[in-house]
Amino acid sequence: MKEGKTRHAVGVDFGGTFIKMALVNEKGEVQSRAKIPTKDAAGVEGWMDAVAKGMAQLKEKKSGDVGELAGIGVGVPGFVDYERGFIHDLTNVPGWTGVHLAAEIEKRFNVHARIDNDVNAMALGECTFGAGRAYQHAVFVTLGTGVGGGLLMNNVLYRGAYSMAGEIGHLSIDMNGVKSPQGRGGLEQYVGNRRIAERAVKQLEQGKPSILRDMVKGDWSAITPEVIGQAANKGDKLALEVYDFVADCLAAAFASVTYLIQPQAFIVGGGVAQSGDILFDPLRKHLGERLSPFFAERIEVKTAELGNDAGVIGAATLVMLE
Amino acid sequence: MKEGKTRHAVGVDFGGTFIKMALVNEKGEVQSRAKIPTKDAAGVEGWMDAVAKGMAQLKEKKSGDVGELAGIGVGVPGFVDYERGFIHDLTNVPGWTGVHLAAEIEKRFNVHARIDNDVNAMALGECTFGAGRAYQHAVFVTLGTGVGGGLLMNNVLYRGAYSMAGEIGHLSIDMNGVKSPQGRGGLEQYVGNRRIAERAVKQLEQGKPSILRDMVKGDWSAITPEVIGQAANKGDKLALEVYDFVADCLAAAFASVTYLIQPQAFIVGGGVAQSGDILFDPLRKHLGERLSPFFAERIEVKTAELGNDAGVIGAATLVMLE
Repeated sequence: MKEGKTRHAVGVDFGGTFIKMALVNEKGEVQSRAKIPTKDAAGVEGWMDAVAKGMAQLKEKKSGDVGELAGIGVGVPGFVDYERGFIHDLTNVPGWTGVHLAAEIEKRFNVHARIDNDVNAMALGECTFGAGRAYQHAVFVTLGTGVGGGLLMNNVLYRGAYSMAGEIGHLSIDMNGVKSPQGRGGLEQYVGNRRIAERAVKQLEQGKPSILRDMVKGDWSAITPEVIGQAANKGDKLALEVYDFVADCLAAAFASVTYLIQPQAFIVGGGVAQSGDILFDPLRKHLGERLSPFFAERIEVKTAELGNDAGVIGAATLVMLE
Repeated sequence: MKEGKTRHAVGVDFGGTFIKMALVNEKGEVQSRAKIPTKDAAGVEGWMDAVAKGMAQLKEKKSGDVGELAGIGVGVPGFVDYERGFIHDLTNVPGWTGVHLAAEIEKRFNVHARIDNDVNAMALGECTFGAGRAYQHAVFVTLGTGVGGGLLMNNVLYRGAYSMAGEIGHLSIDMNGVKSPQGRGGLEQYVGNRRIAERAVKQLEQGKPSILRDMVKGDWSAITPEVIGQAANKGDKLALEVYDFVADCLAAAFASVTYLIQPQAFIVGGGVAQSGDILFDPLRKHLGERLSPFFAERIEVKTAELGNDAGVIGAATLVMLE
């Protein structure tokens, strides 16, 4: 890369609700944003039209020369063959089975295109421009409704034999645990957003004392990991116990990951990670207890830094690095 | 490599009981062998002298020209910094803390040397010349007193950030399970040789019917995974149940590994793997049940092929490939 030459990429975060787009520079900084409801972009053709509109908005909003366009990177919620730029299937978006999206984009926009799983894209973004930028070996974990992961090994995203690696949410922490279509005892079955809320509600229903009762005025449906986190930060015992349990489940999975691939660090993002010390303090403590000293001394746990932009920055990074 | 030119390497399998050595050709075939009791080779100097004697024996036993010597590869039971050829510490051999073994060997024998963890060496051997030779991504697992592992990714052994990756024996299958210095619920605590024997003995003590009772004439100390395997192969219900449990524990760990790094195959070696179908049939069945179809359809489980030579062939492979 020559100095003084500006180079940009378009990152597309294809979510079930919104298609978020951003023009990102080579420092990983967002220059302009666009956002289109996914329901307004039905099918592959409709999606292409929406992205074309978004591209125009991105250019309008950015003053001055955008420089050379490295290409368009897309993060999608589903299974992808990264090398071929092919979407096997998307999890919550109908009509996206067996789509050669990279080829379609290259045909339509005449630029280089890369497609990856959205979590892989986020992992790449965090490990290039965010909390993982100092590491060559890191595991990115995102906590939300589901739990996803991405693996940086030797400075490159490792996608496994068939582009499906990194599914840390399905890693079993209890071989006789909760059943799901992905097996038994998957991490996600214990620390997914709904599971966290359920755990708190169950204890509230049992009559355990907690400020959560007043905080949601008895409306259990208002109990979310965020609200529990607020209560925990005020010292609420029930809420702190819920977070300690979540942290220990994560620690059990992280210990297994550490013994298997020994990264330098875990980078943890997503909603629950916003709770801060009430999650990360017990997480580090339990992880230390679950590892022998040789491994415990050599592992770090960090909060992701790119926040809501992780998806678009990561998607842009897919083409930026090439 | 030029055709017609023979090239060899010396592989050293440094075990707690024996130092096994072999001259190995570039097809991974053992040309000659030597074996020295570890107790006769005390300390680093004593070990060097023993290896020198072994080298002489290897050459004597091999008729004809041994061709170019690619170097000496050593597999050791402990923690190693592969890049630096440095031994942090050996598990059951005193006097081996902080040893620059590769440099010492190169000085003494004036040949290229590589040091790796013994299981990593076996993994490399199996993935180059054995059951894993067709794969670019495979996980080698060896079952014995302990459970070890090695990871082939993109045709290269992956050693993690600090050369300690692949410790599949410490991967947790139950976050509230058996405690050990390595954490809780480590796979090894359920499928290590002694644990398998204990499980059978416990049931025999409870009076459960089994031909094992007659096979060992009531001497519980004679109960080993091998004996249990013989009973299982004769259709003994108790023995079959023990093997089914071992297989399911392995399946739980393999499912987690598959979700995380998605290899093409698991290559399983070591004593218990010799039991054949009574292990591998339930292992494949349980693994299939513990994975979603997308993952289950894309994973294979194979028996290791190099047997007792895996250690020396693997160690030789460390220098052969360079």
